[in-house]
Amino acid sequence: MSVTDAQLAEIEHLRGDAAPTRRATVPDLEALLYQPLPVLDHGFVRVIDYMGNDAAVVQAARVSYGRGTRQVSEDAGLIRYLMRHRHSTPFEMCELKLHVKLPIFVARQWIRHRTANVNEYSARYSVLDREFYLPAPEHLGVQADSNRQGRGAALGPAEAARVLDILRRDAETAYSHYEELLNRRDDGSIVDPERPGLARELARINLSLSYYTQWYWKIDLNNLLHFLSLRADSHAQYEIRAYAGVILDVVARWVPLVFSAFQEYRLGGIHLSATGVGVIRRLLAGEAVTLETSNLGRREWQELMTVLGCDHDRNAG
Amino acid sequence: MSVTDAQLAEIEHLRGDAAPTRRATVPDLEALLYQPLPVLDHGFVRVIDYMGNDAAVVQAARVSYGRGTRQVSEDAGLIRYLMRHRHSTPFEMCELKLHVKLPIFVARQWIRHRTANVNEYSARYSVLDREFYLPAPEHLGVQADSNRQGRGAALGPAEAARVLDILRRDAETAYSHYEELLNRRDDGSIVDPERPGLARELARINLSLSYYTQWYWKIDLNNLLHFLSLRADSHAQYEIRAYAGVILDVVARWVPLVFSAFQEYRLGGIHLSATGVGVIRRLLAGEAVTLETSNLGRREWQELMTVLGCDHDRNAG
Amino acid sequence: MSVTDAQLAEIEHLRGDAAPTRRATVPDLEALLYQPLPVLDHGFVRVIDYMGNDAAVVQAARVSYGRGTRQVSEDAGLIRYLMRHRHSTPFEMCELKLHVKLPIFVARQWIRHRTANVNEYSARYSVLDREFYLPAPEHLGVQADSNRQGRGAALGPAEAARVLDILRRDAETAYSHYEELLNRRDDGSIVDPERPGLARELARINLSLSYYTQWYWKIDLNNLLHFLSLRADSHAQYEIRAYAGVILDVVARWVPLVFSAFQEYRLGGIHLSATGVGVIRRLLAGEAVTLETSNLGRREWQELMTVLGCDHDRNAG
Amino acid sequence: MSVTDAQLAEIEHLRGDAAPTRRATVPDLEALLYQPLPVLDHGFVRVIDYMGNDAAVVQAARVSYGRGTRQVSEDAGLIRYLMRHRHSTPFEMCELKLHVKLPIFVARQWIRHRTANVNEYSARYSVLDREFYLPAPEHLGVQADSNRQGRGAALGPAEAARVLDILRRDAETAYSHYEELLNRRDDGSIVDPERPGLARELARINLSLSYYTQWYWKIDLNNLLHFLSLRADSHAQYEIRAYAGVILDVVARWVPLVFSAFQEYRLGGIHLSATGVGVIRRLLAGEAVTLETSNLGRREWQELMTVLGCDHDRNAG
Repeated sequence: MSVTDAQLAEIEHLRGDAAPTRRATVPDLEALLYQPLPVLDHGFVRVIDYMGNDAAVVQAARVSYGRGTRQVSEDAGLIRYLMRHRHSTPFEMCELKLHVKLPIFVARQWIRHRTANVNEYSARYSVLDREFYLPAPEHLGVQADSNRQGRGAALGPAEAARVLDILRRDAETAYSHYEELLNRRDDGSIVDPERPGLARELARINLSLSYYTQWYWKIDLNNLLHFLSLRADSHAQYEIRAYAGVILDVVARWVPLVFSAFQEYRLGGIHLSATGVGVIRRLLAGEAVTLETSNLGRREWQELMTVLGCDHDRNAG
Repeated sequence: MSVTDAQLAEIEHLRGDAAPTRRATVPDLEALLYQPLPVLDHGFVRVIDYMGNDAAVVQAARVSYGRGTRQVSEDAGLIRYLMRHRHSTPFEMCELKLHVKLPIFVARQWIRHRTANVNEYSARYSVLDREFYLPAPEHLGVQADSNRQGRGAALGPAEAARVLDILRRDAETAYSHYEELLNRRDDGSIVDPERPGLARELARINLSLSYYTQWYWKIDLNNLLHFLSLRADSHAQYEIRAYAGVILDVVARWVPLVFSAFQEYRLGGIHLSATGVGVIRRLLAGEAVTLETSNLGRREWQELMTVLGCDHDRNAG
Repeated sequence: MSVTDAQLAEIEHLRGDAAPTRRATVPDLEALLYQPLPVLDHGFVRVIDYMGNDAAVVQAARVSYGRGTRQVSEDAGLIRYLMRHRHSTPFEMCELKLHVKLPIFVARQWIRHRTANVNEYSARYSVLDREFYLPAPEHLGVQADSNRQGRGAALGPAEAARVLDILRRDAETAYSHYEELLNRRDDGSIVDPERPGLARELARINLSLSYYTQWYWKIDLNNLLHFLSLRADSHAQYEIRAYAGVILDVVARWVPLVFSAFQEYRLGGIHLSATGVGVIRRLLAGEAVTLETSNLGRREWQELMTVLGCDHDRNAG
Repeated sequence: MSVTDAQLAEIEHLRGDAAPTRRATVPDLEALLYQPLPVLDHGFVRVIDYMGNDAAVVQAARVSYGRGTRQVSEDAGLIRYLMRHRHSTPFEMCELKLHVKLPIFVARQWIRHRTANVNEYSARYSVLDREFYLPAPEHLGVQADSNRQGRGAALGPAEAARVLDILRRDAETAYSHYEELLNRRDDGSIVDPERPGLARELARINLSLSYYTQWYWKIDLNNLLHFLSLRADSHAQYEIRAYAGVILDVVARWVPLVFSAFQEYRLGGIHLSATGVGVIRRLLAGEAVTLETSNLGRREWQELMTVLGCDHDRNAG
């Protein structure tokens, strides 16, 4: 994780300050505020601010459903009810603001979630730091066959070394040339006083997608959970999953009741198709259903059998 | 359904016009274009325009997944794959524009879907018509006990007549007073040349939520399906469900492959919680699970048993 | 303003609680937290929570523009720069949550701003209170001629009394019938134990647009300023303007530097068309421009002359 | 522009097909449909589909304002009125779908506009082509001093050659290594049958921001105009401005009345601050205003004087 001494001093300064507030507060999250939580080799997630807590979700739901919610006496029960029935608007009443340092290729996946507020470091205005992502050897997976977009087993040590050498060398060359194009080194010194520097907005195009960028990112809890359900999923690329994992821990501290309901109904839940429901009914009725008689495709059949803890290759009856 | 002769003439005029286009076209939907499809007593849905078809979803997906989609050779299969894995962006590539006439209380539920474009008739600029919604007697349900927001069995004939009489009388009185406040009758004539008319933006506040308004409403297919999954659901209020039902038919004509996948994975599918999945695994393993041993709440247990076609009151093993 | 004793006690309880926080705080806004700020006859605005302050806007901007912002040494100057150049994303880093009680016809205008989070009191789940908006006599304007959607001079006292009598009488009748339809009075008692009550979701359609509803409304500062620039404008209906006025005061307390820049560049600024710019250049060059030679329409000409403090009817040279 | 023969054949096939439609059509835009309009060295913009035309804006506005719009008899006048008063919702009733090929660094700016639908080519699923952006020598500007984010005068020929050599060499090396990492060449052949290929989602991180990507991009006319007002502006980076310029031409063909109003009120218009309006009033009243007496900052004063066609350094009186 790359945080300068000056940044650490500023973080300590911010953490030292406390003021009284009448707003909802979450001591468990306060304890974490401003601290960089490391992700990958140089990245981090920092919680900068938050609005609301579990009670704020309940408060909004009780306004919506008014007297109708009196019967659900407990906050935990109401939150589970909301999550189960996809009453999403009460979860929008909480908001989280993060400062994230992340490789550009991760940023490109992340930004596809359009329902957030973003202020990204601009390489038109400023110079990017000499920091790029280099995967740990165990994450250098081969191209997967069965899963078109993913990665399979890790490369062997010799192959991994070769790959890392290429990645490192190209990234370093690109940055040296970036400095040369700018006519300005990382430390602010001029390379050649006789030459003009190329505009920053152009010089940056020489850098690779492994370079780190950073942004402030603010999102409501409902959209954050949607982001996490997609990005903490096993189909997501490992690198963005690493960020999602850290943010999941933040959410667990911030809104523990919401987090628990999220695990029960979303992360740990599954979606069944109409045909899949029919298969389960037939199985429970004692019928010996097979792939052939299931009306499911092979992939769907296999996934269903896995979920149900049944043997794929023969019927589950 | 309330459409004036002038409007019908304009609709016929629009329907008579045809021009060649290189864009994707859907003959089955063209046949319906501009025609008012009746809903409730005075409402309608009119398809005004559309962009894209089933092939447009496939086209966008193939750009996203590039060579990776070659293996999914058939459009129907690819669309099912996208729907199943909640790859929602290709469905955003289709767009539908409707003209809808609907009671204000329905409009207030409908507008909660924020991802659409709306141009509503303005009662600040114009005078509302003398048209209000009066439920058919069979839809005059009593307040439901089990389902806090819904309605139960229909009222008896005498009670229904009493209710309809109140609703009709109050709505008519409100409109007569609306005209008096405006000092202007529905036909444009002045009530009393000696008096000034109250501003339209104020006079309208005397009208009830049963009055009809209208709007142009434009939405992409992905968000439309989300709207329909909520509003065609049995938990939705009958009146908005009536509109959702008509729009479902429009979608079935417009993008039949998408519609079929939507039925399989969304409308006809179910979502299971982590605990619910566990219950099914135990049942399939031969265990006699009961409400007490299920770790589910009573409501969730009952819903699960219903879905699985099992008896609620005893174990399903 | 209608707040029950129980609500006041809860508000006092919330205001009595304070906890330390490391987050950005705004003492001037803390002082106001949870208190109902009256609007119209029964409405209010309550600040429930906020995220960020002037410094949070600057913080986000400095991340975006990095070293590039070092030259703008002062926060006020940077905020003015951002506002002037419509760099809107740093303003999205602040968030405000309000509890608002407002007439339904105002809610219908308000909800058109789609970039906010809303939890509205549901008349499907709960019973609406017997509270409706009755304009003060001085706001009972006649329909304006020149401004199609607006209102002109106030009605005379006799006419105003007649209008208020109609509005009050119809609203009260509607509520009495609402109770009769529900078979349940405002105080919770049953009207007639022999009769069933009509479903709440249906009974409410008898109420008029003047009835009060309430919601939690959460929005980022950038979208809030956009809302205010439209709804605090003289073209907005008086009733929603009354709410916008109260919220403007909240913003002035919350983010005074942003508010000052907003006044300078948005509220107090104007937009000139290409032709309008040309007219000013010609005037400054000494040319005697008239409506006829201006290439502007009459309305645009008049507005331009008013803004420039010139005489409409003759040239401004 | 890089379009393969197979792609050209498909485009010709699509252009050859025409079907009758009852929808609004725009012959001038039909003529352009599917054709790649070249941008930069390898990029393009292709119009894939459109919904609506000038009349669709008018149609939606007339529903909103109902009888109130009868007085504005001409479509052009109504569209100018809507644009002038920022009544934006009628413009949302038109929709455009483009296929765009663009360098990744341009895509990163473009995607910040969140109100569009996007399907981007995925380098997780597929292999990127060997195509990268190399600026024309005349666009190789030096870093600007006065304008922190922009570029100034072009480099001299020798310097330009050196820059282009660096950019080309690094981009080519990165691609050769990309193939080596994938163990798969651009033409699909295997580099070394003994080695496994690295996962595509990882190999791509070696490519630079100058590489081309592509996407389908769909947006409504209101948001498109907002995009164009920012990206066709002189403060935007040249490369994205090149795309905005081509899209402006598309809009001019598609909705000529809207385009004309957009030029008058947005592209050619200016925004004045409250203080700026005061300065003009004083100038018109004959006062000799100077920077010192203007209450404007130097930058704002200079911009105002430029807009007004006055001499910066002395008063404009």
